[in-house]
Amino acid sequence: MVRAATPDDRFSFGLWTVSWQARDPFGDATRPALDPVEAIGKLAEAGAWGVTFHDDDVVPFGSDDATRDRLITAFRDACTEHDVTIEMVTTNLFTHPVFKDGGFTSNDRSVRRFALRKVLRNIDLTAELGAKTFVMWGGREGSEYDGSKDVNAALDRYAEGVDTVAAYIKSRGYDIKIALEPKPNEPRGDIFLPTIGHALGFIAKLEHGDIVGLNPEVGHEQMAGLNFTQGIGQALWAGKLFHIDLNGQRSIKYDQDLVFGHGDLLSAFFTVDLLENGFPNGGPRYDGPRHFDYKPSRTDGFDGVWASARANIATYLLLKERALAFRADPEVQAALEASGLSELAVPTLAAGESIEDLLADESAFESYDADKAAEHSYAFVHLNQLAVEHALGARLS
Amino acid sequence: MVRAATPDDRFSFGLWTVSWQARDPFGDATRPALDPVEAIGKLAEAGAWGVTFHDDDVVPFGSDDATRDRLITAFRDACTEHDVTIEMVTTNLFTHPVFKDGGFTSNDRSVRRFALRKVLRNIDLTAELGAKTFVMWGGREGSEYDGSKDVNAALDRYAEGVDTVAAYIKSRGYDIKIALEPKPNEPRGDIFLPTIGHALGFIAKLEHGDIVGLNPEVGHEQMAGLNFTQGIGQALWAGKLFHIDLNGQRSIKYDQDLVFGHGDLLSAFFTVDLLENGFPNGGPRYDGPRHFDYKPSRTDGFDGVWASARANIATYLLLKERALAFRADPEVQAALEASGLSELAVPTLAAGESIEDLLADESAFESYDADKAAEHSYAFVHLNQLAVEHALGARLS
Amino acid sequence: MVRAATPDDRFSFGLWTVSWQARDPFGDATRPALDPVEAIGKLAEAGAWGVTFHDDDVVPFGSDDATRDRLITAFRDACTEHDVTIEMVTTNLFTHPVFKDGGFTSNDRSVRRFALRKVLRNIDLTAELGAKTFVMWGGREGSEYDGSKDVNAALDRYAEGVDTVAAYIKSRGYDIKIALEPKPNEPRGDIFLPTIGHALGFIAKLEHGDIVGLNPEVGHEQMAGLNFTQGIGQALWAGKLFHIDLNGQRSIKYDQDLVFGHGDLLSAFFTVDLLENGFPNGGPRYDGPRHFDYKPSRTDGFDGVWASARANIATYLLLKERALAFRADPEVQAALEASGLSELAVPTLAAGESIEDLLADESAFESYDADKAAEHSYAFVHLNQLAVEHALGARLS
Amino acid sequence: MVRAATPDDRFSFGLWTVSWQARDPFGDATRPALDPVEAIGKLAEAGAWGVTFHDDDVVPFGSDDATRDRLITAFRDACTEHDVTIEMVTTNLFTHPVFKDGGFTSNDRSVRRFALRKVLRNIDLTAELGAKTFVMWGGREGSEYDGSKDVNAALDRYAEGVDTVAAYIKSRGYDIKIALEPKPNEPRGDIFLPTIGHALGFIAKLEHGDIVGLNPEVGHEQMAGLNFTQGIGQALWAGKLFHIDLNGQRSIKYDQDLVFGHGDLLSAFFTVDLLENGFPNGGPRYDGPRHFDYKPSRTDGFDGVWASARANIATYLLLKERALAFRADPEVQAALEASGLSELAVPTLAAGESIEDLLADESAFESYDADKAAEHSYAFVHLNQLAVEHALGARLS
Repeated sequence: MVRAATPDDRFSFGLWTVSWQARDPFGDATRPALDPVEAIGKLAEAGAWGVTFHDDDVVPFGSDDATRDRLITAFRDACTEHDVTIEMVTTNLFTHPVFKDGGFTSNDRSVRRFALRKVLRNIDLTAELGAKTFVMWGGREGSEYDGSKDVNAALDRYAEGVDTVAAYIKSRGYDIKIALEPKPNEPRGDIFLPTIGHALGFIAKLEHGDIVGLNPEVGHEQMAGLNFTQGIGQALWAGKLFHIDLNGQRSIKYDQDLVFGHGDLLSAFFTVDLLENGFPNGGPRYDGPRHFDYKPSRTDGFDGVWASARANIATYLLLKERALAFRADPEVQAALEASGLSELAVPTLAAGESIEDLLADESAFESYDADKAAEHSYAFVHLNQLAVEHALGARLS
Repeated sequence: MVRAATPDDRFSFGLWTVSWQARDPFGDATRPALDPVEAIGKLAEAGAWGVTFHDDDVVPFGSDDATRDRLITAFRDACTEHDVTIEMVTTNLFTHPVFKDGGFTSNDRSVRRFALRKVLRNIDLTAELGAKTFVMWGGREGSEYDGSKDVNAALDRYAEGVDTVAAYIKSRGYDIKIALEPKPNEPRGDIFLPTIGHALGFIAKLEHGDIVGLNPEVGHEQMAGLNFTQGIGQALWAGKLFHIDLNGQRSIKYDQDLVFGHGDLLSAFFTVDLLENGFPNGGPRYDGPRHFDYKPSRTDGFDGVWASARANIATYLLLKERALAFRADPEVQAALEASGLSELAVPTLAAGESIEDLLADESAFESYDADKAAEHSYAFVHLNQLAVEHALGARLS
Repeated sequence: MVRAATPDDRFSFGLWTVSWQARDPFGDATRPALDPVEAIGKLAEAGAWGVTFHDDDVVPFGSDDATRDRLITAFRDACTEHDVTIEMVTTNLFTHPVFKDGGFTSNDRSVRRFALRKVLRNIDLTAELGAKTFVMWGGREGSEYDGSKDVNAALDRYAEGVDTVAAYIKSRGYDIKIALEPKPNEPRGDIFLPTIGHALGFIAKLEHGDIVGLNPEVGHEQMAGLNFTQGIGQALWAGKLFHIDLNGQRSIKYDQDLVFGHGDLLSAFFTVDLLENGFPNGGPRYDGPRHFDYKPSRTDGFDGVWASARANIATYLLLKERALAFRADPEVQAALEASGLSELAVPTLAAGESIEDLLADESAFESYDADKAAEHSYAFVHLNQLAVEHALGARLS
Repeated sequence: MVRAATPDDRFSFGLWTVSWQARDPFGDATRPALDPVEAIGKLAEAGAWGVTFHDDDVVPFGSDDATRDRLITAFRDACTEHDVTIEMVTTNLFTHPVFKDGGFTSNDRSVRRFALRKVLRNIDLTAELGAKTFVMWGGREGSEYDGSKDVNAALDRYAEGVDTVAAYIKSRGYDIKIALEPKPNEPRGDIFLPTIGHALGFIAKLEHGDIVGLNPEVGHEQMAGLNFTQGIGQALWAGKLFHIDLNGQRSIKYDQDLVFGHGDLLSAFFTVDLLENGFPNGGPRYDGPRHFDYKPSRTDGFDGVWASARANIATYLLLKERALAFRADPEVQAALEASGLSELAVPTLAAGESIEDLLADESAFESYDADKAAEHSYAFVHLNQLAVEHALGARLS
């Protein structure tokens, strides 16, 4: 069986996950609303160290200030009582109809200004609650029809928005970083910043990009058929993996938000391997929370809600145990070596070697026997089978 | 009927397109080899202003220097004779088995050095032939199994390779820019720099990124379910659309390389609209060649090869005519205005407005009537139907 | 411009299309409820000859009998007044939470019995209103987890349910046919009868399969990356294309329900070509309504709702005009002939030829020159370019 | 570690799998040809009980009769020597250019006749070698352009072809069944009979469909985003799962043919669970060979070829062990019961209950409390987590 979670594991959950009432495009809610304060207690019980929320998860859109204060205080008190850390905050710019054409990139300027104000207000709250990460999922920033957006103007507005928020953070001296969350589509036909890559390219053009990074989600990348582990690898390489959303997805289809590991299990193993063990040759590491952003099955009652919360943690811990054993196995180490993984860390040009030196090296080209070199067997399948067997726990002593 | 192409249209073709012998994963070649010199003549006849090629398209891998010189000279002479511009050159780092684990990111360092030398040699040829763009499609840079690559080391090697080539270009004083060509998969399970976005993020980390941009391909983005026009829009916004590969793809599947417009026709209309008319509110423009990278149908003989070359041009010209009429139509202009496209070009903060000013603007938040604002109809469907009808030529006077 | 629709065009709309309030998985409704009676008037104005509905579209779930009678009478009267034919009826087994694990295949037998009763009641209404087609979209019949269903038992229950309904229709002597509507996923992770093919295979095992056929939807097949025109071609071949749902989808993603032609435009052209012109060599024809099942853009107000209704019709009529011209063009006829389409209609064995005769025909094998025969150019690209140009209206005289 | 395979496991391999020389659309062969006789010995060593082949795998296309006899005899002797059963035979109608527009559905009638003769000749060989299954993968039967095929005529020809082969089998009294292998695309843009479902629907229209069933392949269904286990479940329900192709695929992309379990691992677990344990409530069982159809990684030498052959077997055996433990676990049995799986096996109408009885049962509708019934929690997530933990070997005692 799996060990219990500890605060050191830093598991956290979106408040909206367990609170999801299971309304979908073709069906009404199957579960009643869940009181945020009750949710905190149950999440703590399930093993959560942290929690995250959208403004509207705790305070209904349009509440007056007194109601807002009361609800936030109650929520904060519950977190304190259950020793749950509010590690990230995010703003909902997608549910209310006013955002139907986006928040920061709506064609309607008044909507953009309202969105910005809604976010800035929430930045203050983030600081007040001590969270260090502010996530922005621009789920409504996009279009269904190519003609309905000027992509250049839209990205200008998007950059203006994010830079304004970042400038505000700096101006207030807050210790907060922004993490953008890419998604290819749904609820818009095509969403701006559809993948990890597009967001990295976007951040590179920002004025205040130094405090802007990413919050990639497993299922979002997989909805574009992309390899999630490779994606967060590039984010780490770029120094931009600020936060993470773990969940499950089965192939390219609507956003499923399954329990972590209930989607592509082998990919989940390699994600945990990267998060827990880092790159084989060292390099940038992720040290943020292990954050779950999923939806409890619409078919289940609250028993299923809490079972699913626990399932995320249990699967992660299991895969962590397997990933540690994988790397520690001498046979795996030998297979990694045989496959040339450490050789990949050696620069192609030798230390101090200039381009002219390379051009002068006949062994590199003129006398290189490409046909002979092509016989090199990388033995990747053997290595992958070791990974599969470790993932399956078949090589535990 | 469609008018004939002129040199001002700057249509160009990969030499490998019409020369493709139609060998596929399940079948042998259905067409004989085509002499490059003959190909040039026929392409010119079909309306091509330019041509592009991989080193190995003209000079078989492993040829001796004399053969190489002879073949290149013949090729160049044919181009001169037919007044065809060699506008781009690229290096084949994927066909020979030595590249089976990649060129710049192979786990085998000797392969990486060989790949680099093969590219540098071809850079000299690019300069000699007067081409201004050097494309790099890293089709073998990637993996099938997450465990077989250290993504951080791989991206380090990839960056080292591209930076070395860029540094070489600068050191020689060549007037050449590098254009990376993203692709999500095939022939590798997952390819590094899978989308326009990932390549933009990668370039931002390069030392010599100033001369490195993109050569996006229609089908490659669509293989990830991404919107091609939106993708090149982001590349333009980032100042990185250096070249383009036009072709066709039907949904998410293997790389089809159909004739331009034989895939997603409406998307092709909007791509041409962007290339020919620019963004609705102005901004960066693409002024490079209209380059076709496709495969003539395996079912067809050389009649089909040349019919397909002409089909690319005819479809592009048709869509160009339609895109010009679309933008010129007063009803379209009214619909663009009604949909708020020009308002999107207005900064969200007024000129000179500070964040504190925005915070002080009660009309932006405190007194903003979100429910009322939500009633705004963007009238996008009407605009899109106008686009469809213009694409279909149903609104030509 | 496009001509106006006439009753002979037999365009019909789901009542739920224009009435969709634009609630999606991430956002609240953006449009108010639309009175069914008002909807009928507006649809008639837009060119609709027919209308279709789910029980719950007209009568809210759980209404008492008096309310039901009143609402149905008002609806029927509106149809009569506006000369709109109720051509198809369908039952909602997906919105109410009781159906969260399906209707006919719910693991809960009481739900299955309730679902059956709900359907049987609606069959009576179908007969009463004179509709000839009863559609069944089993959108909740499926699962997210392979372990949560016994597929054999589920298909047994599904077959039991459909056969019971069919038997009831026969027992009452109703002139109604059942049309199953396949969909691969959403709202369930995997839906039973995910494609046209699976439904055809299922119907073949039914006891009363003679009155059970299909209602395929453009986007549903495209969500599995399948070719819609080829799919309905197989349904026609099997004698089972009883009804059709026309709309638009852009690649493999969530169910977009765009306007017909706003998705894959070239595929839409070939769909209309098949519906209007039939197979090139003759054979089974579709003679049912041209039924639109789409969602008006969530970004638009009622102006967009009615614009989108008209857009479906306009695009269909345009493509019909183009498809008629395509087939009538002598150059197309020549290209079809050259591509061997009429030869495909010739049986492989000659009239009266036995297998033994074939085995004795040396020209078919022993002396067959496969290499020579392989040189046959099918000239498919030329034919397809003619189709593209006709679709684009570039070959209208 | 995993136990060794025994003949009772009935593992078999396509001869073409280990013999694949790793030529792909963008690259040349990376491995030399493998002698079929040597392959048999190595496969036996790896644990294979059976082997399958295409005619052209053993006898090069176009060989004369003497060569053919010699090669077949050598192959057969090797099988006898190594105690390897030839359990299935198939005919290659896709590699030679003559089949570029298909075999049974080529627009060229002479090709169709040649294809039929090639198949009939191979049926005799199948019988002679004692194999009981004849697989037909119609990989070239399809099109890239909707206009290039008359789907009705094509399916007529396809049916004519299959029925002719089936009639021949019956006329000769052979004990052979035909198994069609569906695939959605690649190498054609759209292949006829793209999924299990389409093939089932097709078979239902055949004259000799009684001896025609399916050979579904894991990756082929997953290339359409379909659930493989659910698909073979429907094939079993229809009595048509005659053979199976096990391999791995990662999402919707080109046909990867990975090792079984190296794709969607959790799906592989449920596939093995169905093959080894049958449906939870009993019903039709698969009792054919466990046949692997995959491609050894192009990056690997022959070490990797044989490692991959062993990996298929090892993963299958591991998952089988896990699936047996899953079903035997009392907690799982309780969870299955709680989720209502056995209730799904109970007919919706009671034994002897007529439709009129159902209509008279007020508890089924008039007094049914749908809101109350909607509270039923199916507890599917708990069940699925048990499956995940069993798959991962985390609940082994």
